[in-house]
Amino acid sequence: MIKVGIVGGTGYTGVELLRILAVHPEVAVRCITSRSEAGMAVADLYPNLRGHFDLNFTAPDLATLAECDLVFFATPHGVAMRMAPELIARGTRVVDLSADFRLKDLDVWAAWYGMPHESPEWAEKAVYGLPEVAREAIRSAKLVANPGCYPTAVQLGLLPLLEQGLVKTDRIIADAKSGASGAGRQGKIGMLHGEIGESFKAYGASGHRHLPEIRQGLVAAAGDASLGVTFVPHLLPMIRGIEATLYAELNDPADFDRLQAVFEDRYRDEPFVDVLPFGSHPETRSVRGANHCRMALHRQEDSATVIVSSVIDNLVKGAAGQAVQNMNVMFGLQEDLGLQAPALLP
Amino acid sequence: MIKVGIVGGTGYTGVELLRILAVHPEVAVRCITSRSEAGMAVADLYPNLRGHFDLNFTAPDLATLAECDLVFFATPHGVAMRMAPELIARGTRVVDLSADFRLKDLDVWAAWYGMPHESPEWAEKAVYGLPEVAREAIRSAKLVANPGCYPTAVQLGLLPLLEQGLVKTDRIIADAKSGASGAGRQGKIGMLHGEIGESFKAYGASGHRHLPEIRQGLVAAAGDASLGVTFVPHLLPMIRGIEATLYAELNDPADFDRLQAVFEDRYRDEPFVDVLPFGSHPETRSVRGANHCRMALHRQEDSATVIVSSVIDNLVKGAAGQAVQNMNVMFGLQEDLGLQAPALLP
Amino acid sequence: MIKVGIVGGTGYTGVELLRILAVHPEVAVRCITSRSEAGMAVADLYPNLRGHFDLNFTAPDLATLAECDLVFFATPHGVAMRMAPELIARGTRVVDLSADFRLKDLDVWAAWYGMPHESPEWAEKAVYGLPEVAREAIRSAKLVANPGCYPTAVQLGLLPLLEQGLVKTDRIIADAKSGASGAGRQGKIGMLHGEIGESFKAYGASGHRHLPEIRQGLVAAAGDASLGVTFVPHLLPMIRGIEATLYAELNDPADFDRLQAVFEDRYRDEPFVDVLPFGSHPETRSVRGANHCRMALHRQEDSATVIVSSVIDNLVKGAAGQAVQNMNVMFGLQEDLGLQAPALLP
Amino acid sequence: MIKVGIVGGTGYTGVELLRILAVHPEVAVRCITSRSEAGMAVADLYPNLRGHFDLNFTAPDLATLAECDLVFFATPHGVAMRMAPELIARGTRVVDLSADFRLKDLDVWAAWYGMPHESPEWAEKAVYGLPEVAREAIRSAKLVANPGCYPTAVQLGLLPLLEQGLVKTDRIIADAKSGASGAGRQGKIGMLHGEIGESFKAYGASGHRHLPEIRQGLVAAAGDASLGVTFVPHLLPMIRGIEATLYAELNDPADFDRLQAVFEDRYRDEPFVDVLPFGSHPETRSVRGANHCRMALHRQEDSATVIVSSVIDNLVKGAAGQAVQNMNVMFGLQEDLGLQAPALLP
Repeated sequence: MIKVGIVGGTGYTGVELLRILAVHPEVAVRCITSRSEAGMAVADLYPNLRGHFDLNFTAPDLATLAECDLVFFATPHGVAMRMAPELIARGTRVVDLSADFRLKDLDVWAAWYGMPHESPEWAEKAVYGLPEVAREAIRSAKLVANPGCYPTAVQLGLLPLLEQGLVKTDRIIADAKSGASGAGRQGKIGMLHGEIGESFKAYGASGHRHLPEIRQGLVAAAGDASLGVTFVPHLLPMIRGIEATLYAELNDPADFDRLQAVFEDRYRDEPFVDVLPFGSHPETRSVRGANHCRMALHRQEDSATVIVSSVIDNLVKGAAGQAVQNMNVMFGLQEDLGLQAPALLP
Repeated sequence: MIKVGIVGGTGYTGVELLRILAVHPEVAVRCITSRSEAGMAVADLYPNLRGHFDLNFTAPDLATLAECDLVFFATPHGVAMRMAPELIARGTRVVDLSADFRLKDLDVWAAWYGMPHESPEWAEKAVYGLPEVAREAIRSAKLVANPGCYPTAVQLGLLPLLEQGLVKTDRIIADAKSGASGAGRQGKIGMLHGEIGESFKAYGASGHRHLPEIRQGLVAAAGDASLGVTFVPHLLPMIRGIEATLYAELNDPADFDRLQAVFEDRYRDEPFVDVLPFGSHPETRSVRGANHCRMALHRQEDSATVIVSSVIDNLVKGAAGQAVQNMNVMFGLQEDLGLQAPALLP
Repeated sequence: MIKVGIVGGTGYTGVELLRILAVHPEVAVRCITSRSEAGMAVADLYPNLRGHFDLNFTAPDLATLAECDLVFFATPHGVAMRMAPELIARGTRVVDLSADFRLKDLDVWAAWYGMPHESPEWAEKAVYGLPEVAREAIRSAKLVANPGCYPTAVQLGLLPLLEQGLVKTDRIIADAKSGASGAGRQGKIGMLHGEIGESFKAYGASGHRHLPEIRQGLVAAAGDASLGVTFVPHLLPMIRGIEATLYAELNDPADFDRLQAVFEDRYRDEPFVDVLPFGSHPETRSVRGANHCRMALHRQEDSATVIVSSVIDNLVKGAAGQAVQNMNVMFGLQEDLGLQAPALLP
Repeated sequence: MIKVGIVGGTGYTGVELLRILAVHPEVAVRCITSRSEAGMAVADLYPNLRGHFDLNFTAPDLATLAECDLVFFATPHGVAMRMAPELIARGTRVVDLSADFRLKDLDVWAAWYGMPHESPEWAEKAVYGLPEVAREAIRSAKLVANPGCYPTAVQLGLLPLLEQGLVKTDRIIADAKSGASGAGRQGKIGMLHGEIGESFKAYGASGHRHLPEIRQGLVAAAGDASLGVTFVPHLLPMIRGIEATLYAELNDPADFDRLQAVFEDRYRDEPFVDVLPFGSHPETRSVRGANHCRMALHRQEDSATVIVSSVIDNLVKGAAGQAVQNMNVMFGLQEDLGLQAPALLP
């Protein structure tokens, strides 16, 4: 059994980790920390976990965490970069679900997150944990930077096009939409049901923190540092799910004929990427609670623009599920262990 | 492995059975029937099942079904009463999720369902499958009548009061609310998102088919044929979940002191009934996708009225989950096998 | 033109007053106060008001407010009881949408609101502003206590039964459900979309502040100080709307025959109460944005229990609309002026 | 008073026309037709209209309709093109809310709507009723083709860019999202609450009927027949509202400095187009039930891509409200008569 600790367990990512780990056959959750809720039973905060965990939140304590084989950080940015290095030094491996170790360019990181980075060494050593790209590096990683939710949906949808050099890299558009759980569990007026129910809007349209993460991943896939991408997130009146509609222009429209095959080949052996038939419309509910990314390709008449629609559950493949997938890879387990249950539909 | 067939698999109850059985370690789904969708791949109708089942819907065929150890009927009323007897005669056990075998008084059945009952013999022999009441009979049952969704939530919330004779039996009120999936998956205008989203209403307030089923169960628990219950269902602008708020008058208000203990004792060994602390407010999301019924007790000032709030997922404990629980009991398996995953929250 | 001021305009009740008053032909809104948002344009906080008001929020100032003919208080409890008496002394009439002047028993008020009442004089003089009961007193009132949302739906649904002495007064049950806007516009975790979307629960089942207000109104209607009522509110995953399902036992079941006529007679001349045909199911969407209360009666088989389903928009007939109706009465205007637009359906 | 008839009144567009016309001071609704519901009271089908209309649906009758000054067609495509010419011949003016007269190229029309056009004469004479473009022609039009919902949101958001020749016309992307009411009120499984609640997806991504209408409008605005636009609609889990996020590449990125002024100048005198400050995020709820289109501009870092977010209520500015606006123009009334009420927020 892998001894697991969770730092920052009161948010939606924390409860989702617990929900998944509750039925993972090779994991024992040893501790879950929260400064604000220390002493409270996990099942009192999250009644869906009644009967599953006999754990209380505890104040974070390095010694206790260091007894774990793996620690997940489900914290706001700025926490993992301070605590993770010491844990790693004591032999504990880390999957950080926050943004602390996702960007390699620390000037960019500092600009978007409003503080200097405090662990340049580990920012460099950290493995960006998109298993579909970096599986081998993840196996032996001491520190995995779990990708953001939007970047997961966008990168998976565009990778085959960029890796094969099929599209113009200066005209990529990612129009993405997310359920409200992506904003976390904090008492903000703007996230009240009365504010976002029965309504829809763009946000962060002039710039969102996931933009540099997306660009970094796409640049790497394309091998083109000048790649330009426009990314507009939107807020959906629902709880879980991200859909990204991606637009790119084929260098050679004749490539449309082989596009479906390119995608299917790219993801044939991936346990969590599902390429639907050409012209399908993946629904977010088809991945609700599941770790899959489903996607489909479209073309309008004789246009050169390829359209990809890609869906994930932002809390699963976009956060906790991908973190468990990474854990499975790191510890040599079957990659979908604990992640096999179908999505909850309807 | 138990060989399982499903008759009528295209509705919400059918897909929910498949979702649960997909990860059940002792079940092999052999066939799933649908007249209207015969030939279609299950995963084409329900994309959450892509990768889980390589099954096509088939037209119902008695010989094929009779090769199964167990057949679930997820059909409208009127189907199981015609097909089940022959299957049972051939040695196949049946769990009927429809209303065909729930009522013992066939005049009442005929009045509410608008047709004569065609299998009085099996209506009498069928075991009403509320495991918390009839576990022993279920073990050896050839035919289990799986309870309705509302009746499950209402009966579980009232059983301890009635079995112990604590309340007046002529003044029971059950005000129940259900998500839209309870109405099934048919193209009715009244169930469009445009009609029921952002709105709420009572329905069937002058009489609903679940009323006689509820009364039958409460009468049995109380041992009082004159028991009177008023039941009003309501339609919630959401997909899954039932909450029933139950009102009954204590014969002796002094019994309020021991009420919590009565409920906890009654359900101490039940794997799927969870009595929350006195004064709690169970949420439907705490059981979304899970087979639990959670409930809590309330009293207002010095009133003699006991209030019980009881929640289930109408598709799980109210339908497919309870059916699998019954199957586990029937086949001597651990009762929560395949049903252990926590609810999906948020 | 009536010069109107609004104290506490940033909440949902405040914006709803502005929405209604924007098209009221006899009203000029002179000022709207908010300590927290002083200086901000109303239309910046509420974009639906862009083009309708050229007003900024201002810090509350007694002299400015006293220049108004009427001041609405859309504040938390505890504010109006301190400010209203001085305004009245200066000749300004007041409609208080908060709970400060709703209860006549100030011990009860103090117990439920956790502070002593600071204006016993005006608590006594205030007119409880349910026009269907107190129209004449409202005409000349200096201070109108605008009823709570639940109390409006519950009282209107029960008045005909109690005024005519048709039901037993010790067994009244009010099972009520409200959209999330009833909880106001504050950054509470419990009211996040991620918490209450796609879920349903009772709350305040052991006692809610609207219980004494409901009881006070029902006692007055029945002329029976010993009247007992059980009131359980629930939280709906939607924004606007209250439905109350009311249960009472007829003294004489034969009265069922004339019940519909009793209700129709009682409300025949009421502009905002609509009695639907017996056995109907009013939907909250049928009053969304409108000042109507719609209701219908039900009976189950030969039961003695009368069931009333009553719906309002909690922000309109349950708050701002009723306040404007009261204003119309106070100033001798046509009672439905500014309130004629149909509900927004779908 | 303008005598108005409505053909096809049972759908969402029909009820929305009635909701708006109920408080229009210059309109008398004389008849509303429906083959399927002939004889039924309007208020029985739409309870929000109880007390507003004493009308029954009638079977469509040309003679009765011809007595009206104006007839609105709220029918599926294929009806107006058969009935409108005769009505016009008898002196009745027509606003057609269906797609029959929106496209000038009848080959394109036939290809998308699957039937030959039966009134080429009026297809040519019809005025495409976007008042912000064609106000003068609308004044004297006998037949106005009311624009589609998506085309309204998309065209208004792009017109200033295209009319001024500021953007490349081969790279326009319109990513649009609509509430469920846009699909009408028919009993389709795919539009059940259980299917589309809590989920999101693209649809028609390979081609949607509004694509040729959008292209026709954009081509006209740009004066460039080779203009290329990619349009992907999406289905939102809510009832009302469209948001379109529009992407176009500036010919000269320096034009970003004057873009806000270009938009504000273009729409300065428009009663129903509201340009928010640069960098704002319009919400669909800010136009719920109102006839406004609100929009805002964005730029990401030093990109040449201009982003416009444009919102409307699909049933109002996208259908019935725009139809009434057109009627106001046609009959020389104040353009916003009957359309002044603010949006319903929250």
